[in-house]
Amino acid sequence: MEPKRPRGTRDLLPEDALRYRHVIDTVKKVFESFGFDEAETPVLELWKILIAKCGEEVEKQIFRLEGGELGLRFDLTVGLARVVASNPTLPKPFKRYCISRAWRHEEPQSGRLREFWQADADIVGVASMEADAEVLAVAVECLRRLGLEKFELKINNRKILEALARLSEVPEEKFLDAFRAIDKMDKIGLEGVKAELETRGLKEQAKKLLSFISIKGKVDEVAEEARRVVEGDDVGIEGLKEIETIHRLAEVYGYADKLMLDFSLARGLDYYTGPIFEVVVEGMTGKLGSVAGGGRYDELIQLLGGPHIPATGISLGMDRLVEVLRIEGKLPSIKTRTKVFVAAVSEDVKLEALKIASKLREEGVAAEVDLMSRKLDRQLKYTDTKGIPYALIVGRKELSQGMLRLRDMEKRLEKMVRLEDAIKILKEEASW
Amino acid sequence: MEPKRPRGTRDLLPEDALRYRHVIDTVKKVFESFGFDEAETPVLELWKILIAKCGEEVEKQIFRLEGGELGLRFDLTVGLARVVASNPTLPKPFKRYCISRAWRHEEPQSGRLREFWQADADIVGVASMEADAEVLAVAVECLRRLGLEKFELKINNRKILEALARLSEVPEEKFLDAFRAIDKMDKIGLEGVKAELETRGLKEQAKKLLSFISIKGKVDEVAEEARRVVEGDDVGIEGLKEIETIHRLAEVYGYADKLMLDFSLARGLDYYTGPIFEVVVEGMTGKLGSVAGGGRYDELIQLLGGPHIPATGISLGMDRLVEVLRIEGKLPSIKTRTKVFVAAVSEDVKLEALKIASKLREEGVAAEVDLMSRKLDRQLKYTDTKGIPYALIVGRKELSQGMLRLRDMEKRLEKMVRLEDAIKILKEEASW
Repeated sequence: MEPKRPRGTRDLLPEDALRYRHVIDTVKKVFESFGFDEAETPVLELWKILIAKCGEEVEKQIFRLEGGELGLRFDLTVGLARVVASNPTLPKPFKRYCISRAWRHEEPQSGRLREFWQADADIVGVASMEADAEVLAVAVECLRRLGLEKFELKINNRKILEALARLSEVPEEKFLDAFRAIDKMDKIGLEGVKAELETRGLKEQAKKLLSFISIKGKVDEVAEEARRVVEGDDVGIEGLKEIETIHRLAEVYGYADKLMLDFSLARGLDYYTGPIFEVVVEGMTGKLGSVAGGGRYDELIQLLGGPHIPATGISLGMDRLVEVLRIEGKLPSIKTRTKVFVAAVSEDVKLEALKIASKLREEGVAAEVDLMSRKLDRQLKYTDTKGIPYALIVGRKELSQGMLRLRDMEKRLEKMVRLEDAIKILKEEASW
Repeated sequence: MEPKRPRGTRDLLPEDALRYRHVIDTVKKVFESFGFDEAETPVLELWKILIAKCGEEVEKQIFRLEGGELGLRFDLTVGLARVVASNPTLPKPFKRYCISRAWRHEEPQSGRLREFWQADADIVGVASMEADAEVLAVAVECLRRLGLEKFELKINNRKILEALARLSEVPEEKFLDAFRAIDKMDKIGLEGVKAELETRGLKEQAKKLLSFISIKGKVDEVAEEARRVVEGDDVGIEGLKEIETIHRLAEVYGYADKLMLDFSLARGLDYYTGPIFEVVVEGMTGKLGSVAGGGRYDELIQLLGGPHIPATGISLGMDRLVEVLRIEGKLPSIKTRTKVFVAAVSEDVKLEALKIASKLREEGVAAEVDLMSRKLDRQLKYTDTKGIPYALIVGRKELSQGMLRLRDMEKRLEKMVRLEDAIKILKEEASW
């Protein structure tokens, strides 16, 4: 037997797990600071719930279970919408966050993972743009707290895309086809999108549509040009106004300078109905640059059998975020949270070492003790390999004097201490 | 469409999620205090890895994906064993913890969840009983930190069970069948196990086997009787010695009084090779009482294609633990981690309220702000419903004097404060 892992999945060994934990804990704290509460839904959902409004491309990517009735969630939004639909009395706004995994059977060449981590913050029950502005503020704050400053928030609106499609004379039943083609811009380029539109029977309309979606720039700088384009379409004008409202609120939150209107932003999922956004880190090429995305989905909860409740949210792609932070050198370099290794010099002090480790733990100091009857030098080598910052060495002679040897593994310094003093140093209440 | 959830799964809405979070955070801290590092493996594993040594009963319960090549993990151990098998150079001992979900297609009548949370701590690379004694100490510490004192650690050894089967003249190829039958004792009782043994062609052997497995009691009290039973079998004697070694170490750790030798403990999985354990909370009937289980699996890593590496571990059933703690009244009663709701008295101070909320967040105070242009009384009602402990009321008049109204929602008290003072109170750096 070969100990293989499914394609497109990864193991998080301790060092990587700590990096993810750092990012997850930071994001969690930001979410909570904005008053979002954690909620979790099952990894499995009914197939018919999953495919209700994901669109044909995503549907093909859902991992389906034998029997066909169940599938693995492809994002964290569908579960949220389902839970709200089945709990219509939840107080509104319902602001929930969830940091968990989802699965998509992506084509291997795209370099995406099939099992991936997302951190979602959603506001359910608010129709106004205040909610969209807030979830964007949440994303901005997450990135800042993680040490990223150079990024852009691309924004567009499904209402604008609808208007552009209408103005290009795309038949209404082909709107979603057109949006899905546009969504591939980053992957396949302008020529690719053009070919895709032609395949979907939109050859005539492609030229006009592609010229419309070239509008791009800071909201206040391109708003006038944008207005001229959507002028003839009430829904389009409404969509643009929504973006301008978000822009005004962004000025209060302090991220207006990062907000880029981009008519070519489409997002791949069918359930969006209003503003849509994507967060792109500068200098990262292609899709890796997009570390977050989201938008408004006012119809999804009703579609899944609930009342009509507006909703919007943002989703941070944690794997990409970790990767961007790794490239930027913004990840902590610790290898373990264990603070001290309690080493026994000889077999006859092992039980003493065990008792000392218990005392350290009672004091809140994470302590590992030797379980393998290794010689002292091998215990210290292990301590070093694991990146444990201190060793507390228990020897018969020292013990008889009530003393222990504390070793700073990095500085390669040792000193004799009483257990109480060791605890103070390890708790960082006393200096070396 | 009906917004239904798959059978045997549950949603964790904020209040429940907070309870799980409390238990998870407590367990995590204990795991780390013993020097365990977090590691996570995929939810999906190759089918052949999953079924390699789970046993026929569990195999039937694995959720399999379309195509048959992949399945959902049924526990957290198989992924760990696979990851160690494929990373043979990991420094040993490899002490990893993982708090995550697994899936089993359980019969609905048993009342078990099909999606369930587990918290596992495993020690890989240690052949001696010091590792088993430590994982038991970890479980004990978890329960104590969660406020549970009345529980027992049932312990047995696959080597003893083997001896008992051999002494009962069960043919070797039917050992696992016999263990699986014995494992059902809690569910189907003595008569049920007897019938099950008969079904498996072990009618002759049942009487002797069932009399052997009646041995039960504190390790030091029943050790002699136990020794008489396994006397004729070297492997059985070895198994008993291992338990006695664990018992001696348990005295140092301080849980020896909780250690109950129970010859009828079998555990359902085929991969165990040595000591096996189960943690049972007193007063909880049937299977709910068992909140943790585990044991040694020295052959599994090699079986999955790795080198021969001994391993042992314990798994806490988080759903049951949460349920036991709920029954015992040991769960925190908070409904949200949000500390304050920033309420705007009128539309014209909304942006001020937003700015104040931002400042609170900068100070680390979790603050929610009204997004729905609600009247003040409705904002306060919402604050109350959500269980947010404070409201900070922003009014035009007060604002012109540099003041805000801070309201303690529970005590129904209000006072005028400057923002700095509100922050101090909310950070619990100053008293009301």
